[in-house]
Amino acid sequence: MSKLFLRTLREDPSDAEVAGHRLLVRAGYIRREAPGIFAWLPLGLRVLRRVEAVVREEMDAAGAQEVHFPALLPREPYEATGRWDEYGDDLFKLQDRHAADYLLAPTHEEVFTLLVKGMCSSYKDLPLNLYQIQTKYRDEARPRAGLLRGREFVMKDAYSFDVDDAGLDASYQIMRDAYERIFTRLGVPYVPVKADAGPMGGSKSEEFLSPSPIGEDTFVRSPGGYVANVEAVRIHPADPVDASAVPPVEVIDTPDAATIESLVELLNTSYADRHEGPWTAADTLKNVVLALTHPDGRRELVVVGIPGDREVDLKRAEVAFAPAEVAPAEEEDFVRHPGLVRGYIGPQADESGMYALGERSVDGIRYLVDPRVSAGTAWVTGANAERRHALHVVAGRDFIADGIADVANIRDGDPAPDGSGPLGSARGIEIGHVFQLGRKYAEALGLKVLDRDGKQVTVTMGSYGIGVTRLIAVLAESCHDDRGLVWPDVVAPFGVHVVATGKDDEIYRVAADLADELEGAGVEVLYDDRSRVSAGVKFKDAELIGVPHVLVVGRGLAAGEVELWNRREGTREQIALADAVAEVRRRLARD
Amino acid sequence: MSKLFLRTLREDPSDAEVAGHRLLVRAGYIRREAPGIFAWLPLGLRVLRRVEAVVREEMDAAGAQEVHFPALLPREPYEATGRWDEYGDDLFKLQDRHAADYLLAPTHEEVFTLLVKGMCSSYKDLPLNLYQIQTKYRDEARPRAGLLRGREFVMKDAYSFDVDDAGLDASYQIMRDAYERIFTRLGVPYVPVKADAGPMGGSKSEEFLSPSPIGEDTFVRSPGGYVANVEAVRIHPADPVDASAVPPVEVIDTPDAATIESLVELLNTSYADRHEGPWTAADTLKNVVLALTHPDGRRELVVVGIPGDREVDLKRAEVAFAPAEVAPAEEEDFVRHPGLVRGYIGPQADESGMYALGERSVDGIRYLVDPRVSAGTAWVTGANAERRHALHVVAGRDFIADGIADVANIRDGDPAPDGSGPLGSARGIEIGHVFQLGRKYAEALGLKVLDRDGKQVTVTMGSYGIGVTRLIAVLAESCHDDRGLVWPDVVAPFGVHVVATGKDDEIYRVAADLADELEGAGVEVLYDDRSRVSAGVKFKDAELIGVPHVLVVGRGLAAGEVELWNRREGTREQIALADAVAEVRRRLARD
Repeated sequence: MSKLFLRTLREDPSDAEVAGHRLLVRAGYIRREAPGIFAWLPLGLRVLRRVEAVVREEMDAAGAQEVHFPALLPREPYEATGRWDEYGDDLFKLQDRHAADYLLAPTHEEVFTLLVKGMCSSYKDLPLNLYQIQTKYRDEARPRAGLLRGREFVMKDAYSFDVDDAGLDASYQIMRDAYERIFTRLGVPYVPVKADAGPMGGSKSEEFLSPSPIGEDTFVRSPGGYVANVEAVRIHPADPVDASAVPPVEVIDTPDAATIESLVELLNTSYADRHEGPWTAADTLKNVVLALTHPDGRRELVVVGIPGDREVDLKRAEVAFAPAEVAPAEEEDFVRHPGLVRGYIGPQADESGMYALGERSVDGIRYLVDPRVSAGTAWVTGANAERRHALHVVAGRDFIADGIADVANIRDGDPAPDGSGPLGSARGIEIGHVFQLGRKYAEALGLKVLDRDGKQVTVTMGSYGIGVTRLIAVLAESCHDDRGLVWPDVVAPFGVHVVATGKDDEIYRVAADLADELEGAGVEVLYDDRSRVSAGVKFKDAELIGVPHVLVVGRGLAAGEVELWNRREGTREQIALADAVAEVRRRLARD
Repeated sequence: MSKLFLRTLREDPSDAEVAGHRLLVRAGYIRREAPGIFAWLPLGLRVLRRVEAVVREEMDAAGAQEVHFPALLPREPYEATGRWDEYGDDLFKLQDRHAADYLLAPTHEEVFTLLVKGMCSSYKDLPLNLYQIQTKYRDEARPRAGLLRGREFVMKDAYSFDVDDAGLDASYQIMRDAYERIFTRLGVPYVPVKADAGPMGGSKSEEFLSPSPIGEDTFVRSPGGYVANVEAVRIHPADPVDASAVPPVEVIDTPDAATIESLVELLNTSYADRHEGPWTAADTLKNVVLALTHPDGRRELVVVGIPGDREVDLKRAEVAFAPAEVAPAEEEDFVRHPGLVRGYIGPQADESGMYALGERSVDGIRYLVDPRVSAGTAWVTGANAERRHALHVVAGRDFIADGIADVANIRDGDPAPDGSGPLGSARGIEIGHVFQLGRKYAEALGLKVLDRDGKQVTVTMGSYGIGVTRLIAVLAESCHDDRGLVWPDVVAPFGVHVVATGKDDEIYRVAADLADELEGAGVEVLYDDRSRVSAGVKFKDAELIGVPHVLVVGRGLAAGEVELWNRREGTREQIALADAVAEVRRRLARD
């Protein structure tokens, strides 16, 4: 340690939001170079290489073959699949000296597809699984929590190629199993959750989330075993109900009912007779105006009708309207469309038979409804006039929606879509993603092979990613205490940390010999040989750095003993110096 | 090989200019993604990792510590040292979503300097040597010869930090020694040559060139041991000579002397009496107009006077005028400066005492001369009028130059600057570069430490680079024959290539067992198990791929023998199957 390029910090870095990031910086593992862009110092690089090694071993064992693509890629393949535009501002774009367009690749579906197209021509060449451990780029709007959401980061990305759906299912399962082995070996808690394929296209898709309060993903689970990313929850359309007894639409004055709460209060005060039991927010139909921005730049307003006790979840809306971007409508939109009476929008016709919403309306603004708004359900909604609402507005009778939009928020206690009980939510960090791309990329780029019958068929693909640098953030976050990091053995930067304490030369001589002997026995050693540093500072550094096994050579040496300190369990025991190497090896083999 | 992601090509790729590149593509090592940008396929990635391992081992052994910086870096540090502008079009620049400027780093002097500034404060922290093996970017105007001159490439770059010049000399020598070990272990021929520090600044500098006819660098050497890059040859200014006997300037009509050759012919025909012995081109002074573009964008014309038997070497001129860019003057420049009479420019005054060149001239265009143009030397040169020249123009008498420009070409037979004999030239590929940056970066970025006396001193730095991917190009270029690659053992993608030939199941069973046994003995095996491919095709593939040791399991098996084929030496011998593993291990250990 007297020579190691390492300076531990006593102060927390000012820009670190989460404990794991603070400790990685303080313990000298990483250093910030720009927002979301980090340099790896000697300790950090060792951890990174060890995580990569586990990932590589499991990928090789699963039959995937390693290649390595450039990060700097030309525009054309990404143009062909539409991702050049779809990725939006998240894509780092640049031009070379000849003004040709390039990008820093966020993932490599396109070029893997083209590679296989260039090299494979027959079903005999498949199945094939190729992977790389490679530096990726995403121009995140808000880089966050150190390595957790960076702009330059290391990913393992793999791509499978199969001739048919059954093959893809098998390849998918092999990768999924490999991912479980990787996270288990690394000691990272994980939950596989159903995911929406999002802008990547494709069908079957699961994310591996590591449950964590600092996670950016919300997932839900039911007692019966349903687990899904909130974006991926699909509410089944409710069954139609009989509306023959519902009275006709009745427009009422609602002078002081600008909010759902005040409307419900007014209904219960003045219109209690129109409803069995008390009115609730769930009896109202809230019509929310959203602005979609399509990949071609076109802006479209849509109105979604959801029960008044729910909100639009913009992340779920992004999925529902992908690849368009979604935002709430702006002031100007209402100015431009005076037919949309803010706070009083309704899907039904007015007295003259005019509709404010939907295909039949003047502006032709699409009207989509929550899956709970089934035919025959009756609602209180806006009357398309200031301070007026309409009662008894029946779906299918008084309005016909242009479609369904499953964009309302999911709440704890909602029933799981598969009937497995009430949902509960938790937060998680996405550490891996496996999904079936299907034929989207192969079609866009013309990847076909001859099948057994000599027919050209389009190849079907899977895409599998692990955030390698993010895994380190997750490990730092889940493996620390208030004194420092506590790495699992499998990724610790060293197998053992030898700390010599005291001023006696003999101690340093013995400790140096012990370090050599351990190295000779195949254990990587961090040896704290700093003779002018106090034992207290050395122990503080050892706690901060977090090598789980620490051998202290000091006072006990007179009795032929050293102290073996298990940083993880907090136990310290005196062992004979002569047994130290064997005991360290035994502990490393056990963990 | 039946599963390996590999397709060998029979045809040469159309864009491959050199043999090594053609073979790397045909044998399935690399694939071009864009000009100067390549993907690494499984075989290529193995070779890359092995070269990296040798470099890493020697760097670690030399006491350097590995870190890893991002490729994407913010503008500011490069702005502080001037390189943001100096690098010109070679730098890939981009903006993030907030319009902040970034670059893809070509080398990392700035951020290493800042890293050390952030972590070191005392002479006790030094000497320090940090390195990385990392992906670099240069937007080359003409990417060339595959991996030889790429736009995305892998480099090992190291930086040393010392408190004083003696420390820097020691650090420099340690790296220089490590480089010699690396190139020797890899079996790459090399010559260390004196180099000009160029746009990086600094003093002592050597390039490691691998002699090769496809090299882009020309170097010269003398029988007495002088070796230098042509750009780095410094001609000593010639001694003054006595001009007291030289007649005054005589202007002559030279109607048909548009070239140096015709001028010399005219002189020997009509003015032989003015010269002892025949006139030669070396008696004439050629005045060449160059256009410099300075980093701030300013354009400046300069005129350089060189003996008429030489040319301006633009690469040497780039060094002389760095950081300005140099180009020949254009037609327009002459239009703009009518005082420059193209083909008849001279540095002396005309009859009315007016100068066309230099500080005293109307345009003030700088006039610089070759070191051979010493005081008292007499020249035939232009008379600043169409079809007229001047004889007896004496340096120091008839004109005074504004300075020296050592930009004339170096020719075979020129004397070495150190008096060690005549120079001969050869071409080479730059595979490494070691140089003393001195305090340039530390000063620009404020890297100081306290010395032994408690005084703040600016740190002195060295910078050391190896082109890792370029080394593979050099190896492919120097290690092949007309049938394919022939790797040195140390970088071969596999230790041995086992080829099963024939149709007998028994052969494939034995070969598979042999492959397993070799793997068990720690030898990496490429096993050609393709039962439907002819022996001829298998041998052709083996020759193309170039694993130096090939074990053929085929007909000889009946007699308990296999064939051990040494691809490098072309020898084949039958050995007992039972001895095969031991023999392969013996050969691998020997090489």
